[in-house]
Amino acid sequence: MDNRGILIVVSGFSGAGKGTLMKELLRRHPDTYALSISATTRSPREGEVDGREYFFISTEEFEKMIAKDGLIEYARYVENYYGTPRGYVEEKLGQGKDVILEIEIQGALKVKKAFPDTLLLFVTPPSASELKSRLVGRGTETMDVIRSRMDRACEEAQGMENYDYLIVNDDLDTCVEEMHSIIRAEHRKISRNAEFMEKIKEDLISLKGED
Amino acid sequence: MDNRGILIVVSGFSGAGKGTLMKELLRRHPDTYALSISATTRSPREGEVDGREYFFISTEEFEKMIAKDGLIEYARYVENYYGTPRGYVEEKLGQGKDVILEIEIQGALKVKKAFPDTLLLFVTPPSASELKSRLVGRGTETMDVIRSRMDRACEEAQGMENYDYLIVNDDLDTCVEEMHSIIRAEHRKISRNAEFMEKIKEDLISLKGED
Repeated sequence: MDNRGILIVVSGFSGAGKGTLMKELLRRHPDTYALSISATTRSPREGEVDGREYFFISTEEFEKMIAKDGLIEYARYVENYYGTPRGYVEEKLGQGKDVILEIEIQGALKVKKAFPDTLLLFVTPPSASELKSRLVGRGTETMDVIRSRMDRACEEAQGMENYDYLIVNDDLDTCVEEMHSIIRAEHRKISRNAEFMEKIKEDLISLKGED
Repeated sequence: MDNRGILIVVSGFSGAGKGTLMKELLRRHPDTYALSISATTRSPREGEVDGREYFFISTEEFEKMIAKDGLIEYARYVENYYGTPRGYVEEKLGQGKDVILEIEIQGALKVKKAFPDTLLLFVTPPSASELKSRLVGRGTETMDVIRSRMDRACEEAQGMENYDYLIVNDDLDTCVEEMHSIIRAEHRKISRNAEFMEKIKEDLISLKGED
């Protein structure tokens, strides 16, 4: 089968458990996947490590990367830049690793435009009431916080149709394996196996001539 | 998730082992899949049982089925009709079973046209030389027979691009599980989960109003 890795964007509701899911997927299949780390110009928060949560770089460095097309996608929120460095992604794809970007819908659509064979996965809890109870949390949040989280979830829901697959996160273990299967299946797509098919066609013709 | 079954067409090289693969898939997952049986006007061969290999019916009966749109696809080879009865397929899909049709490319394309969300799977051995050695068999075939099988394989190869996924049949056990995973993954496609998504959107809006 063709050897190049697949570029995968994972988005989903806040509170759907994307972080835990990614961590577990990479822990179980460290040789299959690579997690892309975003670059940002904002300052690290307490406990954040450069090269783990983000690459923390200066605005000047970030703008240099933009200028030399070194980012697959980027956006500016408030006064900070966030973006996906191109070098790491292309290196890992070339090595046959499936590269995962955990980004929001606007970024996802930009990536899909630049790389049309990107696989877009959307993570959701099994139901709206389950999502709400995760957003409400342990009862320590104010009504305002909960209301703004619910508003955000309604907005996030509008983007679902743009994705390729739904990942329903009910039980973590099942969900990790399901996500892994969906990506494995994707490698078998006809459109990702042009080389294999060309080869089998050519070989059939030359084997036919042989006897 | 949405409950309707998926219509699946399985085609592939003669000699790719489709028959064994289907049999094993159904044996392992009898509640998940239903195998559609074709109707034909040709006479049963030795060992063939009505309702197992085919439904053996008269030309008159077959033409009545055509007239009342009772076939999903049909074709006439030499002087016999072959076709897929609609009733069984729709009944099983409605029960949430994934229905498998094992038919050739012309039929596959007709089914896809009538049911655009049909999943098309193409079964291939891992290489052309492996295919050839399966076609050559145990050395009891004449050169002419082998040559005509190779010609046919070359034709079959031309149709591969029309399918959705390649199923590489190297080891039977792996192949059955891979085929099963591909179909499971297909159920998670965004386009097959319109109801689930509508529901989560509606519920989010009504839960937002609640607090």
